[in-house]
Amino acid sequence: MSLNSFGHLFRVTTWGESHGPALGATVDGCPPGVAIDEAMIQHWLDRRKPGQNKYTTQRREADEVRILSGTFEGVTTGTPIQLMIENTDQRSKDYGDIKDKFRPGHADITYFQKYGVRDYRGGGRSSARETASRVAAGGLAREAIRAIAPDIRITGYMVQMGQHKIDRDAFDWDQIEQNPFWVPDAKAAKEWADYLDGLRKSGSSVGAVIEVVARGVPAGLGAPVYGKLDTDLAAAMMSINAVKGVEIGEGMSAAMLTGELNADEIFMGPNGPEYSSNHAGGILGGISTGQDVVLRFAVKPTSSILTTRRTITKSGENTEIITKGRHDPCVGIRAVPVGEAMMACVILDHMLLHRGQVGENRGVIG
Amino acid sequence: MSLNSFGHLFRVTTWGESHGPALGATVDGCPPGVAIDEAMIQHWLDRRKPGQNKYTTQRREADEVRILSGTFEGVTTGTPIQLMIENTDQRSKDYGDIKDKFRPGHADITYFQKYGVRDYRGGGRSSARETASRVAAGGLAREAIRAIAPDIRITGYMVQMGQHKIDRDAFDWDQIEQNPFWVPDAKAAKEWADYLDGLRKSGSSVGAVIEVVARGVPAGLGAPVYGKLDTDLAAAMMSINAVKGVEIGEGMSAAMLTGELNADEIFMGPNGPEYSSNHAGGILGGISTGQDVVLRFAVKPTSSILTTRRTITKSGENTEIITKGRHDPCVGIRAVPVGEAMMACVILDHMLLHRGQVGENRGVIG
Amino acid sequence: MSLNSFGHLFRVTTWGESHGPALGATVDGCPPGVAIDEAMIQHWLDRRKPGQNKYTTQRREADEVRILSGTFEGVTTGTPIQLMIENTDQRSKDYGDIKDKFRPGHADITYFQKYGVRDYRGGGRSSARETASRVAAGGLAREAIRAIAPDIRITGYMVQMGQHKIDRDAFDWDQIEQNPFWVPDAKAAKEWADYLDGLRKSGSSVGAVIEVVARGVPAGLGAPVYGKLDTDLAAAMMSINAVKGVEIGEGMSAAMLTGELNADEIFMGPNGPEYSSNHAGGILGGISTGQDVVLRFAVKPTSSILTTRRTITKSGENTEIITKGRHDPCVGIRAVPVGEAMMACVILDHMLLHRGQVGENRGVIG
Amino acid sequence: MSLNSFGHLFRVTTWGESHGPALGATVDGCPPGVAIDEAMIQHWLDRRKPGQNKYTTQRREADEVRILSGTFEGVTTGTPIQLMIENTDQRSKDYGDIKDKFRPGHADITYFQKYGVRDYRGGGRSSARETASRVAAGGLAREAIRAIAPDIRITGYMVQMGQHKIDRDAFDWDQIEQNPFWVPDAKAAKEWADYLDGLRKSGSSVGAVIEVVARGVPAGLGAPVYGKLDTDLAAAMMSINAVKGVEIGEGMSAAMLTGELNADEIFMGPNGPEYSSNHAGGILGGISTGQDVVLRFAVKPTSSILTTRRTITKSGENTEIITKGRHDPCVGIRAVPVGEAMMACVILDHMLLHRGQVGENRGVIG
Repeated sequence: MSLNSFGHLFRVTTWGESHGPALGATVDGCPPGVAIDEAMIQHWLDRRKPGQNKYTTQRREADEVRILSGTFEGVTTGTPIQLMIENTDQRSKDYGDIKDKFRPGHADITYFQKYGVRDYRGGGRSSARETASRVAAGGLAREAIRAIAPDIRITGYMVQMGQHKIDRDAFDWDQIEQNPFWVPDAKAAKEWADYLDGLRKSGSSVGAVIEVVARGVPAGLGAPVYGKLDTDLAAAMMSINAVKGVEIGEGMSAAMLTGELNADEIFMGPNGPEYSSNHAGGILGGISTGQDVVLRFAVKPTSSILTTRRTITKSGENTEIITKGRHDPCVGIRAVPVGEAMMACVILDHMLLHRGQVGENRGVIG
Repeated sequence: MSLNSFGHLFRVTTWGESHGPALGATVDGCPPGVAIDEAMIQHWLDRRKPGQNKYTTQRREADEVRILSGTFEGVTTGTPIQLMIENTDQRSKDYGDIKDKFRPGHADITYFQKYGVRDYRGGGRSSARETASRVAAGGLAREAIRAIAPDIRITGYMVQMGQHKIDRDAFDWDQIEQNPFWVPDAKAAKEWADYLDGLRKSGSSVGAVIEVVARGVPAGLGAPVYGKLDTDLAAAMMSINAVKGVEIGEGMSAAMLTGELNADEIFMGPNGPEYSSNHAGGILGGISTGQDVVLRFAVKPTSSILTTRRTITKSGENTEIITKGRHDPCVGIRAVPVGEAMMACVILDHMLLHRGQVGENRGVIG
Repeated sequence: MSLNSFGHLFRVTTWGESHGPALGATVDGCPPGVAIDEAMIQHWLDRRKPGQNKYTTQRREADEVRILSGTFEGVTTGTPIQLMIENTDQRSKDYGDIKDKFRPGHADITYFQKYGVRDYRGGGRSSARETASRVAAGGLAREAIRAIAPDIRITGYMVQMGQHKIDRDAFDWDQIEQNPFWVPDAKAAKEWADYLDGLRKSGSSVGAVIEVVARGVPAGLGAPVYGKLDTDLAAAMMSINAVKGVEIGEGMSAAMLTGELNADEIFMGPNGPEYSSNHAGGILGGISTGQDVVLRFAVKPTSSILTTRRTITKSGENTEIITKGRHDPCVGIRAVPVGEAMMACVILDHMLLHRGQVGENRGVIG
Repeated sequence: MSLNSFGHLFRVTTWGESHGPALGATVDGCPPGVAIDEAMIQHWLDRRKPGQNKYTTQRREADEVRILSGTFEGVTTGTPIQLMIENTDQRSKDYGDIKDKFRPGHADITYFQKYGVRDYRGGGRSSARETASRVAAGGLAREAIRAIAPDIRITGYMVQMGQHKIDRDAFDWDQIEQNPFWVPDAKAAKEWADYLDGLRKSGSSVGAVIEVVARGVPAGLGAPVYGKLDTDLAAAMMSINAVKGVEIGEGMSAAMLTGELNADEIFMGPNGPEYSSNHAGGILGGISTGQDVVLRFAVKPTSSILTTRRTITKSGENTEIITKGRHDPCVGIRAVPVGEAMMACVILDHMLLHRGQVGENRGVIG
């Protein structure tokens, strides 16, 4: 039982801190024979990389991944794959002035209360930098999925920033890669740019909601009753830094519906069962229906802001703090590739699990 | 790796179906020396028991728990505890007419697609009846917590039913046990009774939001970065039947806040750190702060309603269905004790984990 | 992580004590669609059942297994299978006189030192009675193996009792079921009967070596480097009560060989690779070769004997003890079906794991 | 579930191949506050390092360990510790001539049959080089044990090489570090040197038996019934390359004893229970007694020898092979520090587990 691991058969253990020599992911259980190289993983890492535009932290990290094990002649061998990213822009001097203060909204105080150690260098293990390891592992998972089930596509995007929500009627898949916020709505992207620019200049921050969709997932994935597909997705997303809520399909709004409104009626289509709607988010009883798997998660506003706030020191004295580091006004932006990566890992894991438990998708309708 | 298990050191495996001979929970890792008997567990089970009032299913189950192992002379021995509940009111004839039809919104179709077996008896393993096993395990967890940390109190209640929300200003802990909905607001309880009565008579159903709070939890519980306290809570709640969303503290609304509004400032109180607010829901970086641990989850409306809906048969023919069984108009009501039980299991588990990982709470402030 | 569980995907959790109401096995991960009923499992349990002849304990237990969950209309459904055996002949009065004494060679003292609880009723959880649960689970595993790979045959037998060893030249598979010791050598069976009769009458006991062979196992099972087939087999056998040593293939004698003598040379046979010998016991680098998987384990002599021995009481006083219970002069005899059951569980588990990890046996030679 | 991991709370995942860029161990669950640096781990690695004398492989590896995460200001932080060792002397050309042949006694053929990939570079993941990662993790475990229970001492040594056994009457702890074989018998060390020199010159090899003892282990460690201390030790040792048998205490010889001879009688000593002998090897019912924990394991002779043997190619043709690599005539020598490392990891793991399960050692006698 590693508490820094997730996944059942596709098992990812991340390691490393914000300002240590390196961080990475030890990935066990990747199927053999998957074509993989460092460039393929780098592609995904580059999407999360800081300092790419003015809306994300100006920390400059190359985030270059190295594959240290588990491949031979360009394919996976079935043995553990070590993905390492060296920390190059550590600048630990930046953090010296908050050495003895706990930053409100950060895990500084709870890590100290738990472990008795204060790693003041940028949050240590609790830094969002840990998510680089997840994105690397997710890149590998995507390639393994592509090899096994090429129809599956996993896409994340932002649907809400602060009070601003996208217009669902203007939803456009092609817009997602066209703006720095991964917003599927051209008009929103433009408006949000102005809004965020204001926040950045004032040293404030704001929360966001990310939606991640997996299309082409076959029916039958998920392992009731505690390894359900939605259970594992909820855990995967809630484990991401700053996430405070997770929804599947209708999500929290399901509470407002009646049984009639929430019903996804079933009928036969040309290729099997189809549904009149997808309130369920593609999952019934923890098992995929074959519809799109749809989830959302809420990311709280970055806690590091330029407004003075009250806090205490390690020795228990009341004091104040301003966090001047290089931070993201909306950390939700960089959470998009992280959410995608976690979705990819969970989907692959359940594909392998299904094979191990059942062998093949056996229940054929019609 | 059992996919019907949850917990790290306090490990609960549930087993059994809606209409099999029995169901139960195999609990491994309960500390030795905890005073326990069947009546203590029955107390909690009775809260979830069906047929207690007109708002819950009229299936009549005694839900009597038997302890088959793991105790001696009234205390736990440190060995596995088997909690068994026999199914007495099985009436499988009720389900005969839907034998070949998949009920929309239920897991009938996905279980069949996964396993190739159609257990048409009330949903089989996917029935909410499985949660009786969770409540039994949660009762045991509560007693173990009481023995180790008597200040911890875990309470669940309903905060929303359909469009109706409680008035937070009228919040009254003492009201929770005074009405059949576990609502902490006397006026709401009364109004909701009328509303639900109407739903019941019309054969409809509605969703709900449940809040569960753990008071008295010490700082330092939780195991970053994938065994976080909130990660495990999210998984525990999402694994409950019909749950579609989980929130910690501010939850999905965190997306709407700015960093200034979301900040829980810290200052020294007489017994250690205190906070100006609890947007975090008592958890920072996956570790408890010592504040109340606060979560919410949304339960979708019961899918079994008296309105005709379209569906298909096992052989792939389009048809229609009305579900006439004995069902709950708001299954969220009975989800309250289930949510409490899951919270109790997770809290106990993390108390044991903390001891195993760290030994004692070492980081003392001040 | 349940410490009363074994197996990766085919996951068995045993529960129950010698003198509690019942004991059993919660089995998760059995593939769906396997034909199973209570009689099929009872068949294997009856082989381990006490009181069948004068060489095993005269405790009279019906050892009737009930399937409480996980099957429907005669086949497994893919959900947890609960196998329960009620304790009927508990006679706890037998044990009253040793209530405060620790029996040498038993786990009485260590369980007390660990848990602070003295369950004096026949060893409680540490009783060999726990192995009934293993045999029930093994019976289920055998049926699942039969459904997936009907060529696999798993057979255990005794090769040594005290100083007496079988004559390998007289080895006869057909003899195994013809004598109460599961000895594959007719002459040895006869001689050992006299020897054991003498031991029984004198109230002494003796150890034994059991060999278990799995024939027909395909190449490619096993999961390096810590879930190796031999690693899991060693753990499975060492976890059986009274086992003190485990060997794969050549075993401890491998230490005496030179590289030339130990080499299993490879050549092509009509159906693939063949080997000149099987010093490896069918496993190389933790993965099956396709040869017979061969293991042995040593069972220590029953610790309950009629000779007075020194011991201490719970309160720390020196005293003496004679154990007059109903015991086996050679507990190794009843360990044969237990070893077979563990082999069956491990083999099935690795068949499922292989499918989950690799999908199919991909490396074809020739 | 990582199949390249071992341990429950102190969880070690090893990664890396013989000829990849690096290998290492990802260690999760090390308690916080343990003083550690690279030199402390290097000390243990140097004992296993190849090329130290003429009896071990002449492959020249610096085996320098780097700590990439999990420590801050010289102490562990409670987060994952990454121990990396770069491969410097890879010389993969050495292996070119056996590229398409399977080496008898090696895992070449089974890895290919399982994974469909032939990593011909020195055995890839199945190489004994993987054990360097174990020794690094074991070094960390030793320091953590020292911090928690300074009285525990873990020592391994060779007791048999081929037909030669040590003289138990000449046993001398101080001799172990005085000879290249870790033999606790000065006369044997001298004689074995000549014997091994002959083997080396003739290009042959021989097996060995290693004994590992843990002194000062408190009573109460071990987690019945499938996480027993001896179960975990058996798995740990059997997972080491080339190991074919594992014994606890009396081991396989327990089969030859009667109940009277095998009894370890109990009496009260000045500091608690004492025993007249230690046939049990310090473990009863899977839980430590407080006596020395004693185990042995047999290592088969190195399969790479200079004698021509029959084998086959990937394409299924019969052929012959001589393995000319840089190999150990008795790989058992370098297995001594590996066995010690595994013992250290298992003991630490069970110390943490005990704390998590029970809290403190509660059963006090007297």
